[in-house]
Amino acid sequence: MSLQVIVLAAGQGKRMYSKRPKVLHKIAGQPLLGHVLDTARSLSPDKLVVVYGHGGDQVRAEFAGQDDLVWAHQAEQLGTGHAVKQAMSHVQGGVTLILYGDVPLTRKATLERLLDATGHCTAVGLLTDFLADPTGYGRIVRNAAHKVVRIVEHKDASEAERAVKEINTGMMAVPTARLDGWLAELRNDNAQAEYYLTDIIALAVRDGLAVNAVQPDEHWEAEGINNKLQLAQLERIHQQNVACKLLEAGVTLADPARIDVRGMLHHGQDVCIDVNCVFEGRVELGNNVSIGANCVLKNVKVADNVVIHPFCHLEEAEVGAGSLIGPYARLRPGAQLAENVHIGNFVEIKKAEVGVGSKVNHLTYVGDATIGRGVNVGAGTITCNYDGVNKFRTVIGDNAFIGSNTSLVAPVEVGAGATTGAGSVITKNAPPDKLTLSRAKQLTVEGWARPVKLQKK
Amino acid sequence: MSLQVIVLAAGQGKRMYSKRPKVLHKIAGQPLLGHVLDTARSLSPDKLVVVYGHGGDQVRAEFAGQDDLVWAHQAEQLGTGHAVKQAMSHVQGGVTLILYGDVPLTRKATLERLLDATGHCTAVGLLTDFLADPTGYGRIVRNAAHKVVRIVEHKDASEAERAVKEINTGMMAVPTARLDGWLAELRNDNAQAEYYLTDIIALAVRDGLAVNAVQPDEHWEAEGINNKLQLAQLERIHQQNVACKLLEAGVTLADPARIDVRGMLHHGQDVCIDVNCVFEGRVELGNNVSIGANCVLKNVKVADNVVIHPFCHLEEAEVGAGSLIGPYARLRPGAQLAENVHIGNFVEIKKAEVGVGSKVNHLTYVGDATIGRGVNVGAGTITCNYDGVNKFRTVIGDNAFIGSNTSLVAPVEVGAGATTGAGSVITKNAPPDKLTLSRAKQLTVEGWARPVKLQKK
Amino acid sequence: MSLQVIVLAAGQGKRMYSKRPKVLHKIAGQPLLGHVLDTARSLSPDKLVVVYGHGGDQVRAEFAGQDDLVWAHQAEQLGTGHAVKQAMSHVQGGVTLILYGDVPLTRKATLERLLDATGHCTAVGLLTDFLADPTGYGRIVRNAAHKVVRIVEHKDASEAERAVKEINTGMMAVPTARLDGWLAELRNDNAQAEYYLTDIIALAVRDGLAVNAVQPDEHWEAEGINNKLQLAQLERIHQQNVACKLLEAGVTLADPARIDVRGMLHHGQDVCIDVNCVFEGRVELGNNVSIGANCVLKNVKVADNVVIHPFCHLEEAEVGAGSLIGPYARLRPGAQLAENVHIGNFVEIKKAEVGVGSKVNHLTYVGDATIGRGVNVGAGTITCNYDGVNKFRTVIGDNAFIGSNTSLVAPVEVGAGATTGAGSVITKNAPPDKLTLSRAKQLTVEGWARPVKLQKK
Repeated sequence: MSLQVIVLAAGQGKRMYSKRPKVLHKIAGQPLLGHVLDTARSLSPDKLVVVYGHGGDQVRAEFAGQDDLVWAHQAEQLGTGHAVKQAMSHVQGGVTLILYGDVPLTRKATLERLLDATGHCTAVGLLTDFLADPTGYGRIVRNAAHKVVRIVEHKDASEAERAVKEINTGMMAVPTARLDGWLAELRNDNAQAEYYLTDIIALAVRDGLAVNAVQPDEHWEAEGINNKLQLAQLERIHQQNVACKLLEAGVTLADPARIDVRGMLHHGQDVCIDVNCVFEGRVELGNNVSIGANCVLKNVKVADNVVIHPFCHLEEAEVGAGSLIGPYARLRPGAQLAENVHIGNFVEIKKAEVGVGSKVNHLTYVGDATIGRGVNVGAGTITCNYDGVNKFRTVIGDNAFIGSNTSLVAPVEVGAGATTGAGSVITKNAPPDKLTLSRAKQLTVEGWARPVKLQKK
Repeated sequence: MSLQVIVLAAGQGKRMYSKRPKVLHKIAGQPLLGHVLDTARSLSPDKLVVVYGHGGDQVRAEFAGQDDLVWAHQAEQLGTGHAVKQAMSHVQGGVTLILYGDVPLTRKATLERLLDATGHCTAVGLLTDFLADPTGYGRIVRNAAHKVVRIVEHKDASEAERAVKEINTGMMAVPTARLDGWLAELRNDNAQAEYYLTDIIALAVRDGLAVNAVQPDEHWEAEGINNKLQLAQLERIHQQNVACKLLEAGVTLADPARIDVRGMLHHGQDVCIDVNCVFEGRVELGNNVSIGANCVLKNVKVADNVVIHPFCHLEEAEVGAGSLIGPYARLRPGAQLAENVHIGNFVEIKKAEVGVGSKVNHLTYVGDATIGRGVNVGAGTITCNYDGVNKFRTVIGDNAFIGSNTSLVAPVEVGAGATTGAGSVITKNAPPDKLTLSRAKQLTVEGWARPVKLQKK
Repeated sequence: MSLQVIVLAAGQGKRMYSKRPKVLHKIAGQPLLGHVLDTARSLSPDKLVVVYGHGGDQVRAEFAGQDDLVWAHQAEQLGTGHAVKQAMSHVQGGVTLILYGDVPLTRKATLERLLDATGHCTAVGLLTDFLADPTGYGRIVRNAAHKVVRIVEHKDASEAERAVKEINTGMMAVPTARLDGWLAELRNDNAQAEYYLTDIIALAVRDGLAVNAVQPDEHWEAEGINNKLQLAQLERIHQQNVACKLLEAGVTLADPARIDVRGMLHHGQDVCIDVNCVFEGRVELGNNVSIGANCVLKNVKVADNVVIHPFCHLEEAEVGAGSLIGPYARLRPGAQLAENVHIGNFVEIKKAEVGVGSKVNHLTYVGDATIGRGVNVGAGTITCNYDGVNKFRTVIGDNAFIGSNTSLVAPVEVGAGATTGAGSVITKNAPPDKLTLSRAKQLTVEGWARPVKLQKK
């Protein structure tokens, strides 16, 4: 049975008070629509159609290059039925699953149950939910045999109908050929002058098809986002789910309510994550990795037995096994640390390889550099990699010792085993195994008097 | 109808275990009493009287200069009735609203309903609440006609009375002339030997006035603070309320439970705030401003399209449009950044203007300085602004390039387009468009041997 | 009556997915077993026996030197009854209390009630609990007289028995002599082929002893840990309990849900702790101490009236009264600050004494140093304490003024009242009261042209 998916993503989202179209607001760093598309793809659909409208250029640009998507434009917002209609020329046969670009957290298993409910094109599957407070939602009206017969909007519902706790989520799976016919029959003679997709339920019943309702396991699977409060609530639910999965997989979390994962967090065994850490993009943590409080890691690969102390900020970097990082260490894109490297406080590393066992422990900027093995970089060292227009590399050989407050004016090379004197400005290559320095003579000024407090004018 | 407000603020708050009087403990950075006074002022009272006692000097000092306040001293703590009595010489006519300096979160709308309940001086308005567990509170006793007839303290209540869920919050609005008379009738022949304000309810009933009870929309509006647990609970409720309002106004919050606003947070459209940020004083954020995780902003003005990375600390500073700040940037009082300025990691800016498009990206201290447009300040640069007693300014012209590890000994000026060499100590003005440096010759020491490990003595 | 305690700690904890044995996973920085042992010790037992098995070497190593512990090895995991049997040769007389190394948060008062339930060796005390959802737990079967008669495992329970909400926690107090006999009678003819400790309840009843059930005040007291989710949940409950105690003692917490105490936090009066702080080991805070957001303190002693700004990291350090620390200050082991010291942003202090009123405010590394009183250490100062193999001390006399970007090459001494020039490298002692510097002449290069953008090859 072929599967067509139509995702409605044309809404503006006025109550988001944003210039971004609603479906581009993010949960866990990914647009709402992206979540829906990922879930849809997990069902291996034959067609995946996105109905776009408001902010269409932004929406299409965000998903540029995703060639499995078919884009259907809804020029005017004339209701959900009208929206689906715009997509119908792209779908054919089998079952059509209708999803919403602002309902991001539906799970694959729930949609599979919904598809099963179509009984191989002999019925309509309708995702409903039971809410303690169904106010405002369309209610599911069932007959004496408990069969679904129609959906009644809240404002049109009788008192008895309003007492119904089962509500329409909007998601449905419909035999495609039937859907086409029913959409043609929809009328907009209602208060909003809109074509309601929900009206096809009554048409299905009229035509003798069963409407089989299935429910999600969790309420949040069917919750849509219309404002920032709902966005924040689903963000937290999503993060809670992620935290739960990490815990189940054996990760130690100091506080499951204080971790944010915005992408994929891969991990080995015996990983500990302290409070208030943020992970973005693809982060890989090896075995026995410990992440201190308040760290931010983005697209980072961390090998086994690494300790990252609090307040670290790592981005597009690799950390070798056994390394100690931080506190207050910043690894910027292109930082590549070998095994047993120590990067200490107030140190910034950018586009630089640091060799096995080397140490950069204090108040240092290493940019555009290659540092060998066993090197000690003294406190306050700066690689002067930029002349205002060009960037140049600094190369430091194995076992070199860079004195504190050294300025390394790139392009420059410090030989293996070389030492630079504290406070030196190294503008020319420093030969291996020797002490190189630039230093004025120390002198004491006789007869010098301390400054005195000046009168303020 | 004239409005008199009396705020009782004489209590010690023993269970706070503090040297500060209770009403000076803070929620959202403001003393409890300050919250009450702000709400009282929103009602435009004719008189606003504060009854003070314990720690009176501290209390009055905290609100020094708020000239609309009338201070009434309660020398001895003889009960709430006695406290109100101390204020009566300052009020006259209309209705007197009685509030409590340790009940900080009552909303204006609730108090307006309470005032309305006095029916233009023909009745007493009493704020009551319905609690699932009313243990310990005074209960509202009503007659068969459901009229309030008196308040009975928990310890004096019969079993039937204890079953009552409606409790006295203490807040009331009373025709002033009547209040005066009833206060004079209060007696202290009770276990505590105190004059209870609540006793006037029975007197009002005796005198044929209706006592109209109104309730707050939320329980926390009537909750008082007697210990640090209650203080923390109301702090969180207040922060939750603030977060809710920000979300409703379209601000994106990564976690509404992890934001603290202690003052006013103004914002434009499409503002995103990551987890665990703290805002103090008056903070203004323009459109499209993004605040990274773990930032602290106090009295800061941030223009449009600014990105503030994690771990920044900004205080009394202005950030121009399009600027990029942090991570780990500290803007101290007087930091004024123009448009498109970049301030990077481990950089401190104090009392300094930084011109359009200038960059101070790494490990730098800029204090008492004026930096022009298009300037690049190299890593490790220090403005030596202090001679131990005086502070001097550093001036850097447009498009200057300050080499890494430069020490700028103020007062000093670097001309427009000038370059300073890495590691230089600039003690005299550097002319425009030229390279100025102070640098000893680099030399390599022949025959030098690396240090060897000394024996520990 | 003598008290014997047996703690079962032999389990592997497969669902922890860890190489550490289960009882070594930590809550509040202490192994689960450590919590149980501490509570056991609070009862002053005559014997304290730990039954160990999986990961036995690690477990014993973790508690090495705790000489009150008797270790009993369980070579094979044949059930709880078998585990207790391994310990019986070490206990004698009185009552034996059986605890579990993976049930960390039982309170002393609960165990005292459990011991009381043995009626001086005439009965068995059994800790039970009433759960809303008892699924999976052994149920307490009582007779018509409401006496406990046996425990039935969930899978063996009848429908009526499954309806019972009272469950077995496993903890019990048993007359030692009786326990010995009953253990000998245990049989493993069950599905798991294990010897169940719970079977002794039926034996006790058979022998005419009363089984007196007592319950903990809180469910979490009896909750065991089998996976990381449960570990995280009990961690948060524990932290909530700690926060509550701090609040009750008068500490102001900005958010009781965002503080982590992993050890002992001692405090004076009027201590304020902002959001998201972590305390480890033994931390002592004096009166009027304020800790800013996002600070980490480990084994630190802070005197009165100290303000610690956000983002500070203090470890094995002492801070004198009236000092101001941070933001972004790192005090490492051996940092000893006298009164009224200021340590500012991006400053690292290690093994160094800083005298009264001295200031180290910006971008500085002070290691292995003694700094006198009234010293001002300029921005960018580095103590060059390490030559690659040896560490040396820097000594700075009272009221010295260290110019910015000074490199102090240890061993070196700066005399009292001395000044060093900005950017100097001080390799020899600087005499008192004089200006010492090393500085190349400032010169401007004529005819110099700015670098131009190079073509990329």
